[in-house]
Amino acid sequence: MTFANVGTLGVQPGKRDEVIEILTRPSSELAASGCLSYEVGVSDDHPETVFVTELWVSPDAHRASLQLDSVKASIAEAMPLLSGEFGGFQFEVVGSPLR
Amino acid sequence: MTFANVGTLGVQPGKRDEVIEILTRPSSELAASGCLSYEVGVSDDHPETVFVTELWVSPDAHRASLQLDSVKASIAEAMPLLSGEFGGFQFEVVGSPLR
Repeated sequence: MTFANVGTLGVQPGKRDEVIEILTRPSSELAASGCLSYEVGVSDDHPETVFVTELWVSPDAHRASLQLDSVKASIAEAMPLLSGEFGGFQFEVVGSPLR
Repeated sequence: MTFANVGTLGVQPGKRDEVIEILTRPSSELAASGCLSYEVGVSDDHPETVFVTELWVSPDAHRASLQLDSVKASIAEAMPLLSGEFGGFQFEVVGSPLR
């Protein structure tokens, strides 16, 4: 069942663009691992937050992706740029009015 | 610029499936109004919450959709089934590692 992971990442002052560069770096591995959608964004109302919405073919595919060398390297690179404030939620997709 | 609207809707006890039925009712109007993605879901950890992630071609397209007769009717139908607890966030998409 399609799995959604939606999150907010607090960033250190002035580090938002660096975090975005890391998160949007092209990765063919993500699609190969079952990532259907991975959107990264910003909001003027929250200048020290990066927003992410992800869709995966399953919760297991998402979990397994966290063990990919490239993903682990990206997490290690981004961690020092983050404030430690995380938000968001995960859910299982049950439908869409577009389908 | 692609706009994301991500939300949680608290529901009255026992009303989750009814809210899901309303939100996932097929609508060709949404796509015609600039809706790129509209995923509705659930989580075992939060049985009285419905989750929604939406992508729109622009913030204006999202705002305008709220004035569609079909959307206003769905909101009116769902409101009595909701608890009044809302969460989530909105952001502008700036990139994706999949593109």
